[in-house]
Amino acid sequence: MPEFLTLLPPDEARALLLSHLSAPKADSELIDTIHALGRVTAQDILAPHPLPEFPRSTVDGYAVRARDTFGAADSLPAYLNLIGEVPMGGEPSFELNAGQCALIHTGGMLPDGAEAVVMLEQTQSARPNEIEIMRAVAEGENVIRVGEDVAQGQTVIRRGVRLRPAEIGGLMALGIVQLQVVKKIRVGLISSGDEVVEPSQQPHRGQVRDVNAYTLAALVTKFGGEAVMYGIVPDDIRALKETAARALSECDVVIITAGSSASTRDMTAEAIASLGKPGVLVHGINTRPGKPTILGACAGKAVIGLPGNPVSALVNGYLFVAPVIEKLLGLPLDASTGSAPRPSVMARLTVNIPSQAGREDWIPVKLLPSPTGREAGGEGEWLAEPIFGKSNLIFTLAAAHGLLRIPPDATGVSAGEAAEIMLL
Amino acid sequence: MPEFLTLLPPDEARALLLSHLSAPKADSELIDTIHALGRVTAQDILAPHPLPEFPRSTVDGYAVRARDTFGAADSLPAYLNLIGEVPMGGEPSFELNAGQCALIHTGGMLPDGAEAVVMLEQTQSARPNEIEIMRAVAEGENVIRVGEDVAQGQTVIRRGVRLRPAEIGGLMALGIVQLQVVKKIRVGLISSGDEVVEPSQQPHRGQVRDVNAYTLAALVTKFGGEAVMYGIVPDDIRALKETAARALSECDVVIITAGSSASTRDMTAEAIASLGKPGVLVHGINTRPGKPTILGACAGKAVIGLPGNPVSALVNGYLFVAPVIEKLLGLPLDASTGSAPRPSVMARLTVNIPSQAGREDWIPVKLLPSPTGREAGGEGEWLAEPIFGKSNLIFTLAAAHGLLRIPPDATGVSAGEAAEIMLL
Repeated sequence: MPEFLTLLPPDEARALLLSHLSAPKADSELIDTIHALGRVTAQDILAPHPLPEFPRSTVDGYAVRARDTFGAADSLPAYLNLIGEVPMGGEPSFELNAGQCALIHTGGMLPDGAEAVVMLEQTQSARPNEIEIMRAVAEGENVIRVGEDVAQGQTVIRRGVRLRPAEIGGLMALGIVQLQVVKKIRVGLISSGDEVVEPSQQPHRGQVRDVNAYTLAALVTKFGGEAVMYGIVPDDIRALKETAARALSECDVVIITAGSSASTRDMTAEAIASLGKPGVLVHGINTRPGKPTILGACAGKAVIGLPGNPVSALVNGYLFVAPVIEKLLGLPLDASTGSAPRPSVMARLTVNIPSQAGREDWIPVKLLPSPTGREAGGEGEWLAEPIFGKSNLIFTLAAAHGLLRIPPDATGVSAGEAAEIMLL
Repeated sequence: MPEFLTLLPPDEARALLLSHLSAPKADSELIDTIHALGRVTAQDILAPHPLPEFPRSTVDGYAVRARDTFGAADSLPAYLNLIGEVPMGGEPSFELNAGQCALIHTGGMLPDGAEAVVMLEQTQSARPNEIEIMRAVAEGENVIRVGEDVAQGQTVIRRGVRLRPAEIGGLMALGIVQLQVVKKIRVGLISSGDEVVEPSQQPHRGQVRDVNAYTLAALVTKFGGEAVMYGIVPDDIRALKETAARALSECDVVIITAGSSASTRDMTAEAIASLGKPGVLVHGINTRPGKPTILGACAGKAVIGLPGNPVSALVNGYLFVAPVIEKLLGLPLDASTGSAPRPSVMARLTVNIPSQAGREDWIPVKLLPSPTGREAGGEGEWLAEPIFGKSNLIFTLAAAHGLLRIPPDATGVSAGEAAEIMLL
């Protein structure tokens, strides 16, 4: 039987894994809004009061009763009696009656009785305390109504939203200077392999430094997790099981990156199986790189075995670890991809890239500005040049701007074709 | 004269501002690589040794001398003498002579004399210490050569690169556990306006809470800066000049967000002019929102006056503050946009959006999955629905996924047209 019939496609594999998680994570913590950038709301946030709380002018001009300006034009101005100036940051001490107006600045509070503002440019000061209005304004013109931004009690930010600068500002406008966010997702990282040593060590001949724990820790940080480092476990099943069990009890997710030899990959599966039910869900995925990836779930937590080679480990970190973090954070996931939307660009390929039908390929690419330039429109803007290289070479990825996906049903992508590049 | 002939287009305004900066920032600091995600390299990084440092197998199999396998096939295997097993993480204690092979695991070190590896699946164990080789391998097959990832002395990461998970991994592979990064760009934030109070305060009637200092602080953090808060200055030119001068001496960039009234906007320009030469470079930009934006340079540092309304301030923060930070960090900037590439998606507009010729518009949009779906290709994937609303409403931006740019030479974008949406 051809291999692609026995291995699970990545989208199915991911969906199966996500379906076994106890998500979203229930633990939240109260933090200062000023430090909340990138954090995820743990509950719906309601407006404690309307915004704005008083009617505000959007221009510099004169606050008026709209009907007093009806019919006003350059040739036939309306004449209004100037009764005062609205102080910035204060409440007007007067109210507006028929035939009256008041000087007001952008952001100023409309006096009682006023319904609109005429822009300064459409007025003239004729005599002291008399203003010529050269244009009619409708009720509400140049005014922000009470509650026009948000009404009192309105849900302003839903649960499961990753906070950006705009949301931080919105919270501050409402005086919400602290809020409940989902606690960072704790991801335990275990490296295995007799040949692996810590990066700070000088490897002997035959040894290599641990790369995967650190690329994955950075990935976890980037997606809103907290990496918990469990160091390097030698090729010993008892040690691996013990460390994995400890990580599972202390973390929300556990990642084991296998040593590069087949025996350590088998140990990873055995260790995952020992941690709890259902254990290993998927052993082998129809993708390149990343075929030996193992997905497991134990007691509602994801336990993932990633291949030892650095490119596979990181690419499959994007494909499987990031969506797990997103699901645990409670972010809404795209139905077709099983993950939150990823930043991407459209680019035209510089060469033909063949791919085996039935397998999903992820090819590191370099993005180059297209000679036809930006003006030709979005698609013409970038060229994507594949970086071929054995997937053991970490600097292949360091040179890449993004990953090109070749879907399982395609046998490749042709030169000149536009394709979506997921930015790394 | 029409206004668009007197106001500078945003791209020209930005280029003028950037040309006055002393960039990149010279100060660097030594940090641990494990904390370097998102930081920017302050110098070129060279490989202290080749990677890998020894020839490694990429498969599980038998290390061989290539010529010993020439002509081997299923029907005519080559018979090699098994002399040992390469230990993972160790140096082989033997060398390979004619007619010999050794068991080796993925990632194992090739013994002296071996030039290639035959995959396990292409061999059979015939008799004790004798292996049947069913396929010929060429020199270097299934092997990563010394220095194939990087050669000793090679520049692996240039100065001015923002570090991602892949670069962190590459550094660890080379044992570079600390590195020099550019110090965070210090951006001083000053709010002005008699009507503005701190978010933690209960505003009186006529007062509003400060939003801009916090949206901009988040923006600064996001792009690699460090926000330094100078609080709210009342509408008093002496106080504003004093605070701005202090901020300029302590920071790399100073941002003043004006109160909403015209008088405070004029004060911002006056304060910038007082700080040093050349002072105000641009007063008014042909963009919406953001026309009253002021760009200045004093003693090689950018001083930017942003409009008081929250949407203008944040959109123009993306357009002018972010590129300044990027330039100071030493990131390579795109020639046409003057900024580092921004994540974006292509989307089709749901409605016609008119725009005034000569003016660049930035319209907040919501992205919705297209009913034609992902399979139709990248462009069909998203619909962009503009969010219309007065630009004073901060929750307009909180609801937006991105900004649609309508260039100055366009009079709008039609429904169904594909456009590039800059993700917020």
